[in-house]
Amino acid sequence: MPTPYRKRIAKLQRLLRERNLDSLLVTSPANWFYLTGFTGEAGLLLVEPRAATLLTDGRFTVQAKEEAPTLRVLLQKDGLYRTCGETLRHRRLRKVGFASDELTVAQLGAIQKAAGSGVRFEPAPKLVQGLRTEKEASELVQMRKAAILASDAVEGAIALLKPGVREFEVAAEIEYQMRKQGASGPAFETIVAFAERAALPHARPTAKRLKRGHLVVLDLGAILNKYCSDITRTVFVGKAPAKVKAWYQAVLEAQAAAIDKVGAGRTCGEVDAAARGVLAAHRLDQYFVHSTGHGLGLEVHEDPRVAKGQKTLLASGNVITIEPGVYVPGVGGIRIEDDVVVGKSGSEVLTRASRDFIEL
Amino acid sequence: MPTPYRKRIAKLQRLLRERNLDSLLVTSPANWFYLTGFTGEAGLLLVEPRAATLLTDGRFTVQAKEEAPTLRVLLQKDGLYRTCGETLRHRRLRKVGFASDELTVAQLGAIQKAAGSGVRFEPAPKLVQGLRTEKEASELVQMRKAAILASDAVEGAIALLKPGVREFEVAAEIEYQMRKQGASGPAFETIVAFAERAALPHARPTAKRLKRGHLVVLDLGAILNKYCSDITRTVFVGKAPAKVKAWYQAVLEAQAAAIDKVGAGRTCGEVDAAARGVLAAHRLDQYFVHSTGHGLGLEVHEDPRVAKGQKTLLASGNVITIEPGVYVPGVGGIRIEDDVVVGKSGSEVLTRASRDFIEL
Repeated sequence: MPTPYRKRIAKLQRLLRERNLDSLLVTSPANWFYLTGFTGEAGLLLVEPRAATLLTDGRFTVQAKEEAPTLRVLLQKDGLYRTCGETLRHRRLRKVGFASDELTVAQLGAIQKAAGSGVRFEPAPKLVQGLRTEKEASELVQMRKAAILASDAVEGAIALLKPGVREFEVAAEIEYQMRKQGASGPAFETIVAFAERAALPHARPTAKRLKRGHLVVLDLGAILNKYCSDITRTVFVGKAPAKVKAWYQAVLEAQAAAIDKVGAGRTCGEVDAAARGVLAAHRLDQYFVHSTGHGLGLEVHEDPRVAKGQKTLLASGNVITIEPGVYVPGVGGIRIEDDVVVGKSGSEVLTRASRDFIEL
Repeated sequence: MPTPYRKRIAKLQRLLRERNLDSLLVTSPANWFYLTGFTGEAGLLLVEPRAATLLTDGRFTVQAKEEAPTLRVLLQKDGLYRTCGETLRHRRLRKVGFASDELTVAQLGAIQKAAGSGVRFEPAPKLVQGLRTEKEASELVQMRKAAILASDAVEGAIALLKPGVREFEVAAEIEYQMRKQGASGPAFETIVAFAERAALPHARPTAKRLKRGHLVVLDLGAILNKYCSDITRTVFVGKAPAKVKAWYQAVLEAQAAAIDKVGAGRTCGEVDAAARGVLAAHRLDQYFVHSTGHGLGLEVHEDPRVAKGQKTLLASGNVITIEPGVYVPGVGGIRIEDDVVVGKSGSEVLTRASRDFIEL
């Protein structure tokens, strides 16, 4: 297997030995891609201290040979989980780790039934995710490109915000432009929210038309060469009331305070508290209804979570979003979000669009 | 709660009583949308014989009030699954059903821990999915529209197939056109596969350029008003060799045979066997590496599975895909797919694009 896959599997195998596991079931597409380069959506990777075997179905065997030529591929018979259990039994594995946060109760049951009573299963969640949080230099190269692509898309979208345009039209244009620049798709359902819909942090685009006097939240991301980006900008159509300007400045200040706190060795909770503290000083903290950010990489929501009280230490190479917001039900919302790489000291912001308050 | 939600919840509550469950945890977005109209991505719906409560977080509470005004909404504290367990304990529920095919081992563990030893958990998978398989008339209206939208998109994409165009450019155009027609997004990652890449049933679009002599597989679907469509067409650029024409006719014949078999009371296995039998008669069955089809609705892959040996009986109102294919590694592939509603006798094909062999 070509690097970096060989190295990543070797790291995981070291973790298995440390935990006295004689194998691990890798059950999420992002995790098996990270370890092998296989991009199929269905399957299961069985990692042992000196071997790795991909189980998959007939739709993906040719693809697996192409993408991971040196990987052992086993065609599943009679269902993936039954094949998995039988394989564990035949290979006489005794202590099998599994991702308890991925495998469903029914899937584990099917594996256990086929494996028989000689195999012990031990929850071993987030082993691969743990490796994934510290991005390698080659991954950061991809993430920079994905972040720039999203930044360009948000700037392009702001240029489309003319009265009369509909939310879903702007969303369609955003996703099309990202695709034409090489994105394989949006990293999540693009959010384009006008006026009081901007008070919904996860608004879906509707047929609502833009008018003067509307706040507009644009939250979008691209998947480029498998890596995700995620950026939010909020603009006002027309001349904004003083209150809206004040909200915007408070959110911007909260974001800057949180970004300032980012660095290896800080806890995620400290970063969250920095944003929350600024909003509290402006008496807006009751309108900040979500956490400050999340990890970003092969998935759009990864570890670490940048949330209240989180004790997880940031490490060099983590990529996180910093995205405080205020949401006033029935009125509107403001969110500003960027993607940040944790450095040994300080940080690097990957996204690039201006954060100045824009009145269109 | 407005119909149809009230009726659907009542049906589910009847199932709970039949199974002596005093509640059910509804843990997938498609299922809680079906029962309540709430479109948020995170949460959990607790259905009891005479009540229904949505647990969700601060990002979704305003949205829940808007989309499901009469539904009881509980804001989660300290994690969704812990809140769920505590709620079960406080409401003194004793026998709680859960979707063992959705809930992860860790999620169930967290719920059990917070619920305490007085609550018994019983696997009750696919209760809501079972209701969802028999589409109501209002759902079929939506699915027809989604199918027509995808049919138009496939015809538009065929018009773009000029030598030199790249796979991902065609995919971008397909998704943009669907969005502009009101789709909230593609139902799955659009497949545009040229030449030998067409031998991969789940090929992702690449930068590969189209040339004369290429087979092209286009597999796409739209999500329109929450309902999915799914259609595949295969065309040839230039004058096709006799072998390719023969493969195409065999796949077309296999598809027609399978569609002919569709009707209430038939087993899914019979429909699959009809397609497989035709391909076997052409000595092509070893190249048909997946099942004949799958259910379609709020999700792009639902029950019933139209696969080898499946004993599930088709029922009036089921919507399934019929999509046989042949895949010759290194050479190319052919797949033809349509969406079909099961009728009391016979069926209705929802998708509309021509199935004649096209040489561009």
